[in-house]
Amino acid sequence: MNPTAKSSLDELSASICWALLRQVGLGRIAMNGPTGEIEVFPVNFVVDHGSVVFTTGAGTKLSLALDGGRATFEADSVDRGTAWSVVAKGPMNVVHLHEELIESFELNVRSWHAGSKPSYVRLVPDIITGRRFEYDTADTLIG
Amino acid sequence: MNPTAKSSLDELSASICWALLRQVGLGRIAMNGPTGEIEVFPVNFVVDHGSVVFTTGAGTKLSLALDGGRATFEADSVDRGTAWSVVAKGPMNVVHLHEELIESFELNVRSWHAGSKPSYVRLVPDIITGRRFEYDTADTLIG
Repeated sequence: MNPTAKSSLDELSASICWALLRQVGLGRIAMNGPTGEIEVFPVNFVVDHGSVVFTTGAGTKLSLALDGGRATFEADSVDRGTAWSVVAKGPMNVVHLHEELIESFELNVRSWHAGSKPSYVRLVPDIITGRRFEYDTADTLIG
Repeated sequence: MNPTAKSSLDELSASICWALLRQVGLGRIAMNGPTGEIEVFPVNFVVDHGSVVFTTGAGTKLSLALDGGRATFEADSVDRGTAWSVVAKGPMNVVHLHEELIESFELNVRSWHAGSKPSYVRLVPDIITGRRFEYDTADTLIG
């Protein structure tokens, strides 16, 4: 290892992006809110057959999902000299089918907070991109 | 403590939001990209006098900052039964003044990856909101 090496940046394949998403449970969903500003919400999520599933109560996320609106989902992780970020963009839809709900329950989606969250929302990305960074040392990143 | 108590949700004051942001170094910035889709980027940031400062290279963030464009910044944390999320919305500007740059360097802003990141961007929120959740147990959240 060359201690003076610069960091490297890798663009990730879709399959690697999905594999990385399966390693974490917390992401953020960004969408256009009713005022025209972008809203960002943390969400606990699971990966389910090429989609991202999370729970939500009434509000912006559910309203947009009911309309099939598009959102941008992001998750990232930093661990000992490696960091990655995956971004998935696509339409959201409310999960209606009983079988889908059962599957989601089995996948153990939990709300980001423990209050009542009656609806499941599924984002099926038509674009998924990821980047992975390697560092010389972990403290280069955190500063 | 009542083990069957439901989680509680607190809307946070602006001053508490800023105090929480000072506790973490990693956030995400969401903005409208050139294709009309929302882009989300992880950024290492510092709080500096009622603003959020982060570094960026050429690209969407810098282009939008050069235009004084608006963005939505989000940071969150999960720790032993408490989780919070703070969202700050406002215009971005490139930091030009030498004194500002020195201050930012002293504040030790680092790029999310260690590659060259020549520009500092400052977001001065006109809206800052936060929510804090209390849980009965940590594993309620993570599931």
